[in-house]
Amino acid sequence: MSKQKKWTESDYKAAVKVHKDNKGKVAILSKTPMRTRRDLSLLYTPGVARVSELIGKNVEDAYKYTFKGNMVAIVSDGTAILGLGDLGPEAALPVMEGKAILFKKFGGVDAFPLCVGTKDPDEIATFCRQIAPTFGGINLEDISAPRCFEIMEKTADLGIPVFHDDQSGTAVVVCGALINALRCSGKKMDELTVVINGAGAAGIAIGRMLRNQKVTPKRIHLLDSKGIVYPGNRRNNAIKEEFAAQVNPDKIKGDLAKALKGADVFIGVSQPGLVSKDMVRSMNDDPIIFAMANPVPEIMPEDAREAGARFIGTGRSDYPNQINNAVGFPGIFRGAFDARATKITPAMRWAAAHALADFVKKPTCTRLLPPVLSMEVGDAVGKAVAAAWKKYKDGPEALGNEKY
Amino acid sequence: MSKQKKWTESDYKAAVKVHKDNKGKVAILSKTPMRTRRDLSLLYTPGVARVSELIGKNVEDAYKYTFKGNMVAIVSDGTAILGLGDLGPEAALPVMEGKAILFKKFGGVDAFPLCVGTKDPDEIATFCRQIAPTFGGINLEDISAPRCFEIMEKTADLGIPVFHDDQSGTAVVVCGALINALRCSGKKMDELTVVINGAGAAGIAIGRMLRNQKVTPKRIHLLDSKGIVYPGNRRNNAIKEEFAAQVNPDKIKGDLAKALKGADVFIGVSQPGLVSKDMVRSMNDDPIIFAMANPVPEIMPEDAREAGARFIGTGRSDYPNQINNAVGFPGIFRGAFDARATKITPAMRWAAAHALADFVKKPTCTRLLPPVLSMEVGDAVGKAVAAAWKKYKDGPEALGNEKY
Repeated sequence: MSKQKKWTESDYKAAVKVHKDNKGKVAILSKTPMRTRRDLSLLYTPGVARVSELIGKNVEDAYKYTFKGNMVAIVSDGTAILGLGDLGPEAALPVMEGKAILFKKFGGVDAFPLCVGTKDPDEIATFCRQIAPTFGGINLEDISAPRCFEIMEKTADLGIPVFHDDQSGTAVVVCGALINALRCSGKKMDELTVVINGAGAAGIAIGRMLRNQKVTPKRIHLLDSKGIVYPGNRRNNAIKEEFAAQVNPDKIKGDLAKALKGADVFIGVSQPGLVSKDMVRSMNDDPIIFAMANPVPEIMPEDAREAGARFIGTGRSDYPNQINNAVGFPGIFRGAFDARATKITPAMRWAAAHALADFVKKPTCTRLLPPVLSMEVGDAVGKAVAAAWKKYKDGPEALGNEKY
Repeated sequence: MSKQKKWTESDYKAAVKVHKDNKGKVAILSKTPMRTRRDLSLLYTPGVARVSELIGKNVEDAYKYTFKGNMVAIVSDGTAILGLGDLGPEAALPVMEGKAILFKKFGGVDAFPLCVGTKDPDEIATFCRQIAPTFGGINLEDISAPRCFEIMEKTADLGIPVFHDDQSGTAVVVCGALINALRCSGKKMDELTVVINGAGAAGIAIGRMLRNQKVTPKRIHLLDSKGIVYPGNRRNNAIKEEFAAQVNPDKIKGDLAKALKGADVFIGVSQPGLVSKDMVRSMNDDPIIFAMANPVPEIMPEDAREAGARFIGTGRSDYPNQINNAVGFPGIFRGAFDARATKITPAMRWAAAHALADFVKKPTCTRLLPPVLSMEVGDAVGKAVAAAWKKYKDGPEALGNEKY
């Protein structure tokens, strides 16, 4: 795997320059030429009136005659931008423009950034409802927990897929990597003790996804910055409380070191440097370490390897097994759009995770996921997701409580 | 001027087909290629983080590094789609996609349609406030009166231009045509009696624009479907009442025939066939007839000519003097964006009207406006609008009460 140099100040300057030179990264493209009076009359008045009338009579025709069926709104309030925190909606724009490019490049999906000037979950949910006529789906992005969960619940009935990439997108890619790590190591899902460090959007969603399948891990420890999350703790928000009641009915308490003792899998969506080599050594044989804190992981891959781990993933492009959402969301929406799914179900998410795992023909401990820039991944994920919607949409196999 | 054939069923079918074949008319374009890991790291993570930080520190930098400074939201609730009425937001989408193409083609402006699922003016104003961080301007479209006036008032302080094309766009183009009609006929603005038939978004806005200049018409009659609008009529909404109090303090009442007697200008934004040849004959010498009801005007050009009128405009492309907003809004936003105007003032609107009139080198009674498909009009209008913002933004010459 080709490695990148460490990023320097001159790289950051190059990034700023490319944004400035192009005044952003996405623009509007006319799919149809408008050169003659005839073009004008077909694409605008009087011709467009007939198209509007058809849609007025049958609202589903919007999928036939407009961009709706291939257009995602990327909605963010800028409260959790990358690892930078709450910088406001304008500061979220460059990230969402980048996301739009990825949607187009890897999923053939048109996506438009809408960075909104409100942090109120009710208002954001109402906003999503108001834009639903225009879009085929909504991708929530960089909205901090627990508000993001509230918005997901309040938009569950919109009739178009609403997906929070920091939750479900991350969970899909982590589960894809986990499937291949299990294949390589011979470990079984129902024998696993999984430690998830970080109880925000991603951590909770990963935990829910692991539970939302037929065969689930033996035990899941979810930790926040104070340690293992347990039910009845008054510090818990409603989301943590609900999840803790499900996975920790015995109210086990303790710190990360305690949780990792004898565990098989570490999934870090937390802070740099929290995991020591000794902690890795205290885990079960052949541990799986997905340390995704950015830009510095919970434990550096060199250290994890020195402590005996073979299966090591991070969020970084300069180490093997980059766990990057870019292999997930474009294909997930591609599939949802192709199947005209009205939501993205647990079965569709697991289908996406399996498609990611299967895409790697011969998985090894340093090749658990498809490469980020592969042009065929979105297609493979899309086909699997569309098939899962068609197969399971009405059946009990769709699994789960819809909560991600 | 080249004429189009009358539209037939097969033309409408062709219009439906081009929409279906392309699944709408606009898509998202990546301005910057994303091929290599280096591209990914410059345009997305980690590079984009620096850009977000810069904007987080100085929100104005969004104009420098993102699409904001060239991006318009086309916001509609679908309540007044063309002449079709309230068909709902999905049915408005094809019209707004067409508008987006015109914005791009004739103004170099990126524009994205947002058709919203609410008709409540408060909610639409709040929606505009919420999307303001993402966009450089907002173009309201096909929102019925008097709600559109309410929305304009409630969004006046957004800090980005908010423009209702059915109001101000129409007014600008009508005034441009009127300027050239006066030049050709030798009539003077302050000697005119102007009859505006139709007291919706366009009619009121035209009336306001005519009053929002240094030299105004001698008299303006505004009529709704019941006749001349007068103050104190309990049927009046607040907007009609306010305008009637300004132009009709003597509470003159009467029908269209009465209003047109001795008038110089007829501006119709109403219904087909309301004006007879006799009414035109009752007008002052060399009357100016802008009959813009669509698709059938208040009086057909042949009939108006037979009754003695030389200056005749309609909304149609198959007669001379098509009064089409497409020559206005792209350049108006081009200019507002180039000057980074925070609103579109009366001075900017009149500058646009004069630019349209001046664009026609030798105006004649059949050539009052630039051709709709001219590629240079947007540029000329844009330059005039930008100059007007720079010259007048702080001065008393900016004119008027800001109400359009």
